[in-house]
Amino acid sequence: MTDSSTTGLRAGKGMPGLSYPEEYLRRLASELTGKFSGIFGAETVERYVLGSYTGLLRTSTVKAHLAANTTRFATDRLTALAQAKGAIETPVPEVLFVCEQNAGRSQMAAVLTNALAGGNVHVRSAGSAPAHELNPAVVAAITELGLDLSEAFPKPLTDDVVQAADIVITMGCGDACPVYPGTRYRDWDLTDPADLPIEEVRIIRDQIRKNVEELLTGLGITPTGLPT
Amino acid sequence: MTDSSTTGLRAGKGMPGLSYPEEYLRRLASELTGKFSGIFGAETVERYVLGSYTGLLRTSTVKAHLAANTTRFATDRLTALAQAKGAIETPVPEVLFVCEQNAGRSQMAAVLTNALAGGNVHVRSAGSAPAHELNPAVVAAITELGLDLSEAFPKPLTDDVVQAADIVITMGCGDACPVYPGTRYRDWDLTDPADLPIEEVRIIRDQIRKNVEELLTGLGITPTGLPT
Repeated sequence: MTDSSTTGLRAGKGMPGLSYPEEYLRRLASELTGKFSGIFGAETVERYVLGSYTGLLRTSTVKAHLAANTTRFATDRLTALAQAKGAIETPVPEVLFVCEQNAGRSQMAAVLTNALAGGNVHVRSAGSAPAHELNPAVVAAITELGLDLSEAFPKPLTDDVVQAADIVITMGCGDACPVYPGTRYRDWDLTDPADLPIEEVRIIRDQIRKNVEELLTGLGITPTGLPT
Repeated sequence: MTDSSTTGLRAGKGMPGLSYPEEYLRRLASELTGKFSGIFGAETVERYVLGSYTGLLRTSTVKAHLAANTTRFATDRLTALAQAKGAIETPVPEVLFVCEQNAGRSQMAAVLTNALAGGNVHVRSAGSAPAHELNPAVVAAITELGLDLSEAFPKPLTDDVVQAADIVITMGCGDACPVYPGTRYRDWDLTDPADLPIEEVRIIRDQIRKNVEELLTGLGITPTGLPT
């Protein structure tokens, strides 16, 4: 590292491995390096932690949940990559839902699939242009079914979750999703719930539920009922 | 990798290192692994190539330039990371401009700084929510100065370019940028040129030029004139 004598700007640089924007990210990188030991090196894990943090920081307005969401996002992306590499078992089909904002359609599809599949699929969701936060009408429409979106958050589409998927279902995100050989792609034509009142969001939600039930049936899985 | 007997969905999965969404990405990963040999392992380079591709694919509408832009983006991000780690020399100050769309303000700032610094700084730019393409009025306002934006494209803010920067200048992107210790941050208050006619974009451009000249002077660099 060359120090620029006219500016002194390079002082404090060139200290590899010492610099994190938040102390909890250093701890997270260390924890995940242990968790994924034998699968990924420390450099890959550090890249995922800092990349996931920056990816969420770019768009999230609710910074209060940033640490918890970064932990979930980085852990899930590393898990997906390990699955794609065959280093972690994938006992049930992996389904990825992608919409534009990951604030409405793909979140409803994910939580409904989780609820209706009875553990027989694993689900992820992402957005091509993630919103600042979940659509409140969507949260209300899901909550009134007795389902929980409290830990969900909009996140950018990354190649690892696509690689880990057996089926990718896109909803209004155009051709924003990488096409991997060996992965099935489907597109669901659904109204975007952004800015719609809850009465109309419920109609979209019920359409998604129907689509999910057909999807599960097609996978040989009998949809369960919802919790009562 | 467990094969799901009810669905057969896992067939074709579990072939580590064999799957790329585009053949040119495999070649790019191989080239960059050679170029950054001794600095980064093949896994890190592959992650950067596929991550950069997915990051641009999410938002870019002009898919014709996707291959060239992915090459530029992945190469530049790996270079930035190598600089941040002290593995590549950084002989001049690194300046990063960040706005929301990376389609107007940060692009004008980058090209003007490049033109006025006479090689005495190195410049990058990024956006917290990158646009589909550059703002055409911005391209026109820059082109009429004899400067070139033909190879510029909107790209998402990533932590590597922040880590490599000595100075980060934000413009209307809120607190979307990671704060690293040892990096200087400034915010420029500028009108967003989105949807403005060229007459108003020229005013913003000239304000940015003034800001850039002050920035350079503050770094001990005498601004050059623009090409005639």
